[in-house]
Amino acid sequence: MSDRNFTPNWYEERPPKNSYRRLLKWGDLEEFKHPNKRLFTLMKETFNLTNDDFRERQKMGLEQVDYDIPSKLSSEQTEKFIEIAGAENVKTDNYTRLRVSYGKTMIDLMRLREGIVENIPDIVISPRSKKDILEIVQYCNQELIPIYVYGGGSSVTRGTEAVKGGVSLDMIYMNKVIELNETNQTITVEPGITGPDYEKILNNAVSELDAKRAYTCGHFPQSFEFTTVGGWVVTRGAGQNSTYYGKTEDMVVAQEYITPSGIIKTGEFPAHSCGPDIDQLMMGNEGAYGILVSVTMKIFRHMPKNQYHFSYMFKNWEDAKNAAREILQSEFGKPSAFRISDAEETDVAMKLYGIEGSPISSLLSRRGYKNNEKCLMLGYTDGEKDFAKLVKNKLHKVCKSYGAMNTTPLVAMKWKQGRFKDPYLREDLGDYGLMIDTLECSVSWSNMENVHTGVRNFIKSRPNTISMTHISHSYHQGANLYFIFIAKMDDIKEYKEFQKGVLDNIQKFGATMSHHHGIGKMNAPWLEGQIGKNQIEILRTLKKHFDPNNIMNPGGTLALDLDEKDKRIIKK
Amino acid sequence: MSDRNFTPNWYEERPPKNSYRRLLKWGDLEEFKHPNKRLFTLMKETFNLTNDDFRERQKMGLEQVDYDIPSKLSSEQTEKFIEIAGAENVKTDNYTRLRVSYGKTMIDLMRLREGIVENIPDIVISPRSKKDILEIVQYCNQELIPIYVYGGGSSVTRGTEAVKGGVSLDMIYMNKVIELNETNQTITVEPGITGPDYEKILNNAVSELDAKRAYTCGHFPQSFEFTTVGGWVVTRGAGQNSTYYGKTEDMVVAQEYITPSGIIKTGEFPAHSCGPDIDQLMMGNEGAYGILVSVTMKIFRHMPKNQYHFSYMFKNWEDAKNAAREILQSEFGKPSAFRISDAEETDVAMKLYGIEGSPISSLLSRRGYKNNEKCLMLGYTDGEKDFAKLVKNKLHKVCKSYGAMNTTPLVAMKWKQGRFKDPYLREDLGDYGLMIDTLECSVSWSNMENVHTGVRNFIKSRPNTISMTHISHSYHQGANLYFIFIAKMDDIKEYKEFQKGVLDNIQKFGATMSHHHGIGKMNAPWLEGQIGKNQIEILRTLKKHFDPNNIMNPGGTLALDLDEKDKRIIKK
Repeated sequence: MSDRNFTPNWYEERPPKNSYRRLLKWGDLEEFKHPNKRLFTLMKETFNLTNDDFRERQKMGLEQVDYDIPSKLSSEQTEKFIEIAGAENVKTDNYTRLRVSYGKTMIDLMRLREGIVENIPDIVISPRSKKDILEIVQYCNQELIPIYVYGGGSSVTRGTEAVKGGVSLDMIYMNKVIELNETNQTITVEPGITGPDYEKILNNAVSELDAKRAYTCGHFPQSFEFTTVGGWVVTRGAGQNSTYYGKTEDMVVAQEYITPSGIIKTGEFPAHSCGPDIDQLMMGNEGAYGILVSVTMKIFRHMPKNQYHFSYMFKNWEDAKNAAREILQSEFGKPSAFRISDAEETDVAMKLYGIEGSPISSLLSRRGYKNNEKCLMLGYTDGEKDFAKLVKNKLHKVCKSYGAMNTTPLVAMKWKQGRFKDPYLREDLGDYGLMIDTLECSVSWSNMENVHTGVRNFIKSRPNTISMTHISHSYHQGANLYFIFIAKMDDIKEYKEFQKGVLDNIQKFGATMSHHHGIGKMNAPWLEGQIGKNQIEILRTLKKHFDPNNIMNPGGTLALDLDEKDKRIIKK
Repeated sequence: MSDRNFTPNWYEERPPKNSYRRLLKWGDLEEFKHPNKRLFTLMKETFNLTNDDFRERQKMGLEQVDYDIPSKLSSEQTEKFIEIAGAENVKTDNYTRLRVSYGKTMIDLMRLREGIVENIPDIVISPRSKKDILEIVQYCNQELIPIYVYGGGSSVTRGTEAVKGGVSLDMIYMNKVIELNETNQTITVEPGITGPDYEKILNNAVSELDAKRAYTCGHFPQSFEFTTVGGWVVTRGAGQNSTYYGKTEDMVVAQEYITPSGIIKTGEFPAHSCGPDIDQLMMGNEGAYGILVSVTMKIFRHMPKNQYHFSYMFKNWEDAKNAAREILQSEFGKPSAFRISDAEETDVAMKLYGIEGSPISSLLSRRGYKNNEKCLMLGYTDGEKDFAKLVKNKLHKVCKSYGAMNTTPLVAMKWKQGRFKDPYLREDLGDYGLMIDTLECSVSWSNMENVHTGVRNFIKSRPNTISMTHISHSYHQGANLYFIFIAKMDDIKEYKEFQKGVLDNIQKFGATMSHHHGIGKMNAPWLEGQIGKNQIEILRTLKKHFDPNNIMNPGGTLALDLDEKDKRIIKK
């Protein structure tokens, strides 16, 4: 094979059973997405690498998970858990304990490659019912045993990490549909149901639930396939269609939680003026107040045939952003998926979606849409047929008025096709010591450029680093900014310092510390700096109310029990 | 004048200065709305009255406000308030003390007619700034002096009633625009700005705020003219266009409160996943946690020319309700004003809007739309021109499919024209011992008939009582139900018993205790029965956090300091 045609020998094996690889791998064990040729070339150029740097894979984590961290539980306590949940639902093996603690953030993957095991629970229980959970919470509260909850395992905030040991609940059996209410277009489910199972049962409601029609959940985060409905709710997640359908907190109608202080249950009402909103005060608690055991969600009519895909190229970021804002404020309805890439991400996207080198690409150049300046907007509309069409037509008009070129629906379709697959890239990159990670925030339109430039400047201040940004969720008054950075970096300490810098700058320039990933333990040191001391004291008061013994997801979650020395309050 | 043409001599004088009448009168002192002939006839028929019952007005409250309730404040305390706010902004006269305590609920009006004065503050202060309020709150917290806040005075929940005496803050000077942000389409205002002043400055933003375009607030409760933005926020109010624009809690972007425990201030972000939502936890606190001193609200483009008015008559309530649900769940966009009257309200509305006796009326009869069965839907659309048109056309199609007859846009225009005027009817009715009052709730579509029939049956169980119900705000999963009842009743005790029965039945049949009026002190005894003990304990914990000495709107607000004996928990 000539050097020019060289392709790395990307790993394509099902990871060995009980290996670290199995945990660091994204999602489906037999699914892979390798960098295409153009991305590979870009990385080599940007990182000053040669083909030789891609001849040998490193730190692949193929070894069996192996460590010696004894359980701190007494045998009496272990027995009690077996009595509550059944022996077959209680596990203490090394692999399972690690599996439910680490999520999918870069630090998790790096630790797994290094074989670093820390912060694991003493025991993993798969409760079968609300009753099991109630008994576990009551017993843990009595014995002061920490409780962590594991759903789909896609946390990128160290949300499920069992920092204080104790029990981890794997919600795998808490996955049932409790009730479909077609009159209200709502469904009540247990929190452990996965995104795909949930969407499948809704799409097939006619055959599976004896319903009159098919529904959709309207919630499709990139991690969709490996998340649970409960995870969406307790972190206030968003999906790629939230611009139209709303974030999780807009979809939740009622919830039930088990807390050490008792059961919290809200009613199924469309709106109220009965004091502060209990639902909104529970959502986002990330397991620090209690455990979600059932949730009632809005569902929507399944009308995929009505979707209109679109993509537009703008001459620059300013025009693209202004068009997005105009679209959101014009009141002609909102697009469903709606993504706007900055110049650097656009150039990478052109490679990833196979536009670079195509006739569209040359046409763009000829018309003056320049590399390193042009910005791509793509997405599709949802809703009733004529409504979806109206949104598409009106959006088209706005884009044209900002000098955009219609780059056809195909680009959006191509993006949609692969949209859940990108995380698989991380394994390949990691095999050659490359890091790809993301951080995200939300910001008002008027402060957006400040944040975009400020954070981007920090990322680019590191030599040989790719920094891509896009808007993935847009609102009347602002949007989410999503930062992706790629670099040659495989040292955990270096990575942590770098990540800290990105988070510092998100705070310094005045964005939220998260729009939909949540706070977890990773972003927690910045939370007080963002929401302020008096505001975080409210969350701490609620914590004491629900969980006076601090057994629920302790060890930094939402900065509720964070040491002063760990807090990062960045001067703005 | 012959008996047949008899019209009562409806009172049409500007009420005397400092009189009870001035306080019981709705809004504009020189505005009146008298029952028209058809309504007058209906009332006589329903209540078994004759013209003779309308010859002499009674309990008109024309007397000067007069009572002897000395201030419990020490002269030192009074001096301190004068020092803080300036002598010209501190009042202790009888009229002012009563003015800021009573609202506009039936019990208030009845007490004013009887000259019953109770629960008044010792002193009324009009703060000029956040600084004044901060000093007042700190001083009151130190001296344990209760604080009440008075905005527009339209509370129908005894929300502002100074049950424990102390200070009442009249927010009249806290009415400034702090900042318009056209990029975000948001405005930051002080809470005391009235609805009309707020809307006027937005409509005239080009000339008054040097803006690029005109805006609208999108919030128009029936009480619009005599409410403040702060009142909307702290009660979680709704307006007649909330089906499209959202309730207040959907419009609020950021808030600042002064509480005895410190200042609570949230940031201007479009969405977040940074833990429980502080904004949603402060909205609806009704002055029991702290005092709102500034709020940032979404605003909308002012496009009144795009509005399409519509009205439809359905053969029955079931069809009208199902059509409403279909409209809300079809995803073609939402109507702005959207009101559906039940059969009894429809019959009354036909009289009020002058349809009865018109050609439309005879056409309806001929086509089989029967009295006591047929139901009226009316409203208008808002938004971008083609969007507003699409909503109108799609809505038309749905209505037709449910057998409705198009009764022309005129009916909706007529309703809109008079929509802020109906409360004036109450003065005329009261002059002849008639009571007209309202209570409202929210409920899911699937439980709606249960609540409608259940509450209506209770109201109708009282002989000679008019019971009208409409849906005034519709959602994907349910709607608001608004009950209006009219009866010959002028005894406070009888009225209270009757009202208690309505509230009991709202709870018994499973609706919220309020959709947009709030809870105040009037609905508070039912709150625990609705949201549950564990849930109300959350609100109480927050109360202790913000206001450990219980000086903020004490005496039953939100049931936070309610005696066990006062609680009403109705078995469902």
